Amino acid sequence: MNRPLVEALHRSPLYRPPLWIMRQAGRYLPEYRELRGRHSFQEAVSTPELAAEITLQPIRRFGMDGAVIFADIMTPLEAMGVDMTFDPGPRLRPHTLEEVIALGELDLDRVGFVAETIHLVRDDLPEQTAVIGFAGGPVTVLAYLVEGGGSKDFLALRSAVRRDPAATAEALEILARTTNEYLAMQVGAGADVVQLFDTLAGLLDRSTFERLTIPAARASLADLEVPRIYFAPGAGHTLDLQAKIGADGYGVDWRVPIDEAWSRLGDVAVQGNLDPATLLTDPSTIRREVRDLLARTAGRPGHVVNLGHGIDRNTPLEHVTAFVEAVRS
Amino acid sequence: MNRPLVEALHRSPLYRPPLWIMRQAGRYLPEYRELRGRHSFQEAVSTPELAAEITLQPIRRFGMDGAVIFADIMTPLEAMGVDMTFDPGPRLRPHTLEEVIALGELDLDRVGFVAETIHLVRDDLPEQTAVIGFAGGPVTVLAYLVEGGGSKDFLALRSAVRRDPAATAEALEILARTTNEYLAMQVGAGADVVQLFDTLAGLLDRSTFERLTIPAARASLADLEVPRIYFAPGAGHTLDLQAKIGADGYGVDWRVPIDEAWSRLGDVAVQGNLDPATLLTDPSTIRREVRDLLARTAGRPGHVVNLGHGIDRNTPLEHVTAFVEAVRS
Repeated sequence: MNRPLVEALHRSPLYRPPLWIMRQAGRYLPEYRELRGRHSFQEAVSTPELAAEITLQPIRRFGMDGAVIFADIMTPLEAMGVDMTFDPGPRLRPHTLEEVIALGELDLDRVGFVAETIHLVRDDLPEQTAVIGFAGGPVTVLAYLVEGGGSKDFLALRSAVRRDPAATAEALEILARTTNEYLAMQVGAGADVVQLFDTLAGLLDRSTFERLTIPAARASLADLEVPRIYFAPGAGHTLDLQAKIGADGYGVDWRVPIDEAWSRLGDVAVQGNLDPATLLTDPSTIRREVRDLLARTAGRPGHVVNLGHGIDRNTPLEHVTAFVEAVRS
Repeated sequence: MNRPLVEALHRSPLYRPPLWIMRQAGRYLPEYRELRGRHSFQEAVSTPELAAEITLQPIRRFGMDGAVIFADIMTPLEAMGVDMTFDPGPRLRPHTLEEVIALGELDLDRVGFVAETIHLVRDDLPEQTAVIGFAGGPVTVLAYLVEGGGSKDFLALRSAVRRDPAATAEALEILARTTNEYLAMQVGAGADVVQLFDTLAGLLDRSTFERLTIPAARASLADLEVPRIYFAPGAGHTLDLQAKIGADGYGVDWRVPIDEAWSRLGDVAVQGNLDPATLLTDPSTIRREVRDLLARTAGRPGHVVNLGHGIDRNTPLEHVTAFVEAVRS
């Protein structure tokens, strides 16, 4: 059984690069909006039948090579005793570093719905399609915890790393351990690939990235028996450091051309990197940009086609079709 | 008359590097909040006595080496016939590229209050303190125009540059010409230094930055007889390209250590780059970070000390004092 996404992350030569789209199970799909009209975000995530249905929606429509499980990067925190709501981003009480360090262990039973979702998805998925599990990177999760939700600048984390780097490292160690357990559970349930979404890691300077982000990301991805992708958007200033994380593949955003990013990342698989804004233009622009992207990777083994960030909710369906067909033709 | 800020931008050797703080005339100051309790943002900007008072407030308290005029990057647009409100960010009708291209000329009389503010500030400023004029970078201003205000991702501009690069270039040319006239007016009124704030330029990929941002920034800063600073936060992926803008100094954010940034920028003056989050920590952390910053520049002529982005509104005054004293001692 050769799933192209898995093969590409092993850098095996393939006839064409595999493709999936970050946030492919989401609001640009009318069938997603219809379902969410009947169920809250948390209900949809925590009910395996609903989460599996949402996970499969984009596959039925576009047949991507990977089905990314519908969940949130904050999902495991609720199973560590953190109270939160979503509207739509996470809202919670700001936590001190000491409170994060004192958080309970991850109760895997309380995230069993994610494993069950993976089982249901696997049962309904075409054989060649990979199941993609994921978690938030420890730095990103910690940024939300200390800030108490979303923010433009996440100054709470950025001041914490300077005020108390030792306690920050300890908090990251706790989160990395639970993230690793959570990902291992997903692999045990049948995830073929896992991705660590370190959405906020690019807010940190290079030396903090090296001292804190890399060990936390590395520990999160340790000893998993499937290909692992690390993705930190807006972190172009750290590309040459990222290989130390030890992932198999690295997602790159649209800011740096993929060939330049690849040469800075080294001998790894690379995922990306069409600007999601491209999917808001028109089919002929989309085809031109895809041609440029594929010319830059030139069939080099190890390329996974994706956007450089999540798909925008206002993306027209026919533009997604144009993207998928341009990659395949 | 040797103003240290001007001298540093000429890369003359100085006894200590000059210092100012982006957004130093702003909400972290109780006297600013008091004044703004009585006057709206637009009223404060457009009334020279009020704008001059706000500009001088941080100088009286901390004695920075430069006084940056209180205004907004959108200020000249109103003098081009664009209607907008502030709450606090600019809100306006989304413009098409064609509408931007058709915008009226800049009516300098309608921004005469900025020149008058500069006269008033110069009259009250210590002789050695430089007056800093500024404008928004054309790419940044265009991003607000096509988006119709602030945004997390500014997808309208990012899709415009891909859908219609020729019209985008034409719109940028219009904005660059008016930006240049607006800056020339400020220099004529007595600005000793000007800075182009290209806050959103880092959202663009390297090749778009090279094709569109650089010529627009270059034209904005052309033929001005004072030192010119270019600042694009989050644009670490373009540092090696920025010298083509032809500015005298370049601001750098906190993501890349200043010595690494400097070697990528080349033989220019460099401004920055303490993380603004550092000013939310404590005096001893601030002193340590300033020592690290100054060790990295090691007295090299051409360093202007600043934060890597605007000062946060919740910054305690005594932390600003600690920052200023650490630089001076």
